[in-house]
Amino acid sequence: MHALKVTRAEDFPEWYQAVVREADLAELSPTRGCMIIKPWGMGIWERFVAEMDARIRAAGHDNYYFPMMIPLSFFAKEAEHVDGFAKEMAVVTHHRLKQIDGTLKPDPDAELTEPLILRPTSETIIGDAFSRWIKSYRDLPLKLNQWANVVRWEMRTRMFLRTAEFLWQEGHTAHADEADAMEETMWALEMYRSVVEDVMAIPVICGEKPENERFPGADRTYSIEAMMQDGKALQAGTSHYLGTHFAEAQNIRYQDKEGGQTLCHTTSWGTSTRLIGGMIMTHGDDDGLRTPPAMAPRQIVIVPMLRGKPEDAELKQYCADLVAELNKGWALGSPMRAYVDIKDARPADKRWDWVRRGAPLICEIGPRDAANGQVTFIKRNGLREGEKIKSHSVARADFVTQAPGLLETMQQELFAEAKARTESNIRDGFNTFADLERYYGTDDESAEFKGWARVHWSRPTGAALEEVGNRLKSLKLTIRNAPLKQPASFGACIFTGVPAVEEILIARAY
Amino acid sequence: MHALKVTRAEDFPEWYQAVVREADLAELSPTRGCMIIKPWGMGIWERFVAEMDARIRAAGHDNYYFPMMIPLSFFAKEAEHVDGFAKEMAVVTHHRLKQIDGTLKPDPDAELTEPLILRPTSETIIGDAFSRWIKSYRDLPLKLNQWANVVRWEMRTRMFLRTAEFLWQEGHTAHADEADAMEETMWALEMYRSVVEDVMAIPVICGEKPENERFPGADRTYSIEAMMQDGKALQAGTSHYLGTHFAEAQNIRYQDKEGGQTLCHTTSWGTSTRLIGGMIMTHGDDDGLRTPPAMAPRQIVIVPMLRGKPEDAELKQYCADLVAELNKGWALGSPMRAYVDIKDARPADKRWDWVRRGAPLICEIGPRDAANGQVTFIKRNGLREGEKIKSHSVARADFVTQAPGLLETMQQELFAEAKARTESNIRDGFNTFADLERYYGTDDESAEFKGWARVHWSRPTGAALEEVGNRLKSLKLTIRNAPLKQPASFGACIFTGVPAVEEILIARAY
Repeated sequence: MHALKVTRAEDFPEWYQAVVREADLAELSPTRGCMIIKPWGMGIWERFVAEMDARIRAAGHDNYYFPMMIPLSFFAKEAEHVDGFAKEMAVVTHHRLKQIDGTLKPDPDAELTEPLILRPTSETIIGDAFSRWIKSYRDLPLKLNQWANVVRWEMRTRMFLRTAEFLWQEGHTAHADEADAMEETMWALEMYRSVVEDVMAIPVICGEKPENERFPGADRTYSIEAMMQDGKALQAGTSHYLGTHFAEAQNIRYQDKEGGQTLCHTTSWGTSTRLIGGMIMTHGDDDGLRTPPAMAPRQIVIVPMLRGKPEDAELKQYCADLVAELNKGWALGSPMRAYVDIKDARPADKRWDWVRRGAPLICEIGPRDAANGQVTFIKRNGLREGEKIKSHSVARADFVTQAPGLLETMQQELFAEAKARTESNIRDGFNTFADLERYYGTDDESAEFKGWARVHWSRPTGAALEEVGNRLKSLKLTIRNAPLKQPASFGACIFTGVPAVEEILIARAY
Repeated sequence: MHALKVTRAEDFPEWYQAVVREADLAELSPTRGCMIIKPWGMGIWERFVAEMDARIRAAGHDNYYFPMMIPLSFFAKEAEHVDGFAKEMAVVTHHRLKQIDGTLKPDPDAELTEPLILRPTSETIIGDAFSRWIKSYRDLPLKLNQWANVVRWEMRTRMFLRTAEFLWQEGHTAHADEADAMEETMWALEMYRSVVEDVMAIPVICGEKPENERFPGADRTYSIEAMMQDGKALQAGTSHYLGTHFAEAQNIRYQDKEGGQTLCHTTSWGTSTRLIGGMIMTHGDDDGLRTPPAMAPRQIVIVPMLRGKPEDAELKQYCADLVAELNKGWALGSPMRAYVDIKDARPADKRWDWVRRGAPLICEIGPRDAANGQVTFIKRNGLREGEKIKSHSVARADFVTQAPGLLETMQQELFAEAKARTESNIRDGFNTFADLERYYGTDDESAEFKGWARVHWSRPTGAALEEVGNRLKSLKLTIRNAPLKQPASFGACIFTGVPAVEEILIARAY
């Protein structure tokens, strides 16, 4: 018996939807492909924003806000970029509605001269501003960030992982030369690794994407890749060195120290609400989400066992005092976030709500606890012993002292568990394409867990790479990245048999 | 000689645009009617968000995120609501672009079955969710808030004050009855007053809008109104009691304690980036913006007098230590925000940049200050003595001790100055419409300052009110609100001569 009606083993995709729904994270909206983010989901996103925003600022980036609607002509400037996004663009064509034959319709007299695109990403409009703002080498590097909503019209959507509208952060920078731009690109990648591993407790592999998986218009794309509990990969963040492509298309030049006009080298990097999907599939269990304490909007939730009687007042006071005391303490570098749930509902129902949401510590406090100065609690990570819920009772003062340590240990345990799973499911020893075929089969319907393959290749390009991509596609596989940490020597290319030059990760992916 | 090329007295609208530009607040974007919000502008908005968000949460509202694109049919449900917004709606009609005859165009094969509207406000899509979420009286009140971008297609735009896209906060709540909903409506109004007066230092008058100025679909609309330095009014925030209009249109009902199905009473309330425009026109002077310390992203800016020589290292260290020490202190309820500007530019240019942005305290520190353990600073409020810049020198330790008090005094002084100006420019003694005509003339071209008129009226409705509105419109005037604080008795109605029932404020407005 678990808190969710479907388990991971029975049906992983169904289990995922159940967690999203039951943990109060989000729900489908009446707008096709878009979701409503609910309080626990928003609270998690706001924690993410706070943590990442502090790091982005500390490294000298300023926040800006650019228009969401971008003139169509801006996209026509960089050919690869528009090819990459044209098929999923939401287009604004009118600026007024009108009653026509009793029906509300776009007013034909209010058609825009030039259609506007809802930003799928902002390189084009920010590059245009760069070209106006950057005059001299003194203006470089120019480093900015934006928190915004973006729209990519997806035909098959899945909550958090792929929705028509999503929330994200996009960094955009301009530099004097390749070395400086590459340093920024790698800084962003490492910053992403640190937030995703240290705060979200999701282990990732940093690496470079192969040519055919690059961002449209980029010279080099780097990613962090995370393994979900079903063995699939989730691209959890990307950082792009854009070379001078956008600078050429948009005339982003600066006067260098010798007085010449030189093209800037630009970068861009982004992470989004999709990471919440990654957190669910990394840390969720059959009782719902286990929210890493550093990400939990509420780390300690107190459910008073109210009985609608006069004694309730005393119990409420005991809980309120406990919360006030806990909130003076610090854990994981921030003030603790404790909360009393006094909603008008059955205590047992409230407890299960918080289990499904994955509040790290859940205290159920009854009149006897209050009388004895005790706290009875469950740890969301370590909820059960066998099938049974495991609860702990300690003196109130001890609970206040121990709470930061409990949260910090839980944070580490969630990371260690995911790290061990990821490492034990990256397999070596694939020598030929047939080995991949044997291991993965042609789809992921078979019950056996499928992790990632770590293989050597000769890094083909152009048509040869396209052929590799097609062969992998026949197994529903993709190259995730070439990890930054590479071995000292290489065997033969798994695709061509010639001497390899690089190790890459191959997987099924979200 | 002032830091801006145009003064308030010479040309107030031009002066406003100059502050927006020169204080690094925002600039026009290539997307018609939309702006790019720049770092100082974004920093101010982020301060606003932090202050208001804390109050909204503390009062028990949760943050949500709803889709930006709303199906057109949702607007058709509430007739007044759609009438109010149909003329300014941006409409998404296609979801793909295609090369057609060599030109990138909306793909005719990717036309949406139902157009989507970019939210001008979210009552319709949130009301739809309310109808699904609310089942019983136990679910009430349901109180939520959203921070989001919204789009209203305006023909005449002005930076911050009226742009096609802007950032805002919208609160939406559902209640069991009118009394509870009205309590919420008035709570939001008072919360707005407190943020705008206590944090932004902008004095406002709280009151109820007349019938003809209500939000489309509201039973009662309340506003806070602020007087700008040119005497015009700015609506700085609104709170609406929506009655059961949206509940009827969207079937938002709950099972009451007796088992019956009862309509909810809903509210909504919003404030936006327009308030930044209000801050400029309240606190700006001919040297740029004076940012209230509680709103300043950087409260104390240190400009080291670097000379590109080896001694610079020591000076930089002195400044860095000073900032570190200041940032341990608190002012106005938050840790202080001090900053060293080490940008590669002339110190005098940097000083003027910070004067125009309105950093409250600007320190210029040279090698001699460092050697003597001194701090030389200017106060942005109290910048000049006559025409001359007034600077102060104190021992470093004293500066650290005095800084919080200096910031707090400045916050109070800015408010007191604006409050005195507002009060002295609200005039009584208008007995007839002709009095208004004499005072205001038919437009605001004449040089004389024009404030607000406080008059008595008989609160006409329907066609009679429409006539009043038209007469006022001929003088470019509007009724701002009927202040919550009313006198004990009333004279004759300024429009009809019959006994009045209410005091109202009349003004030209943004």
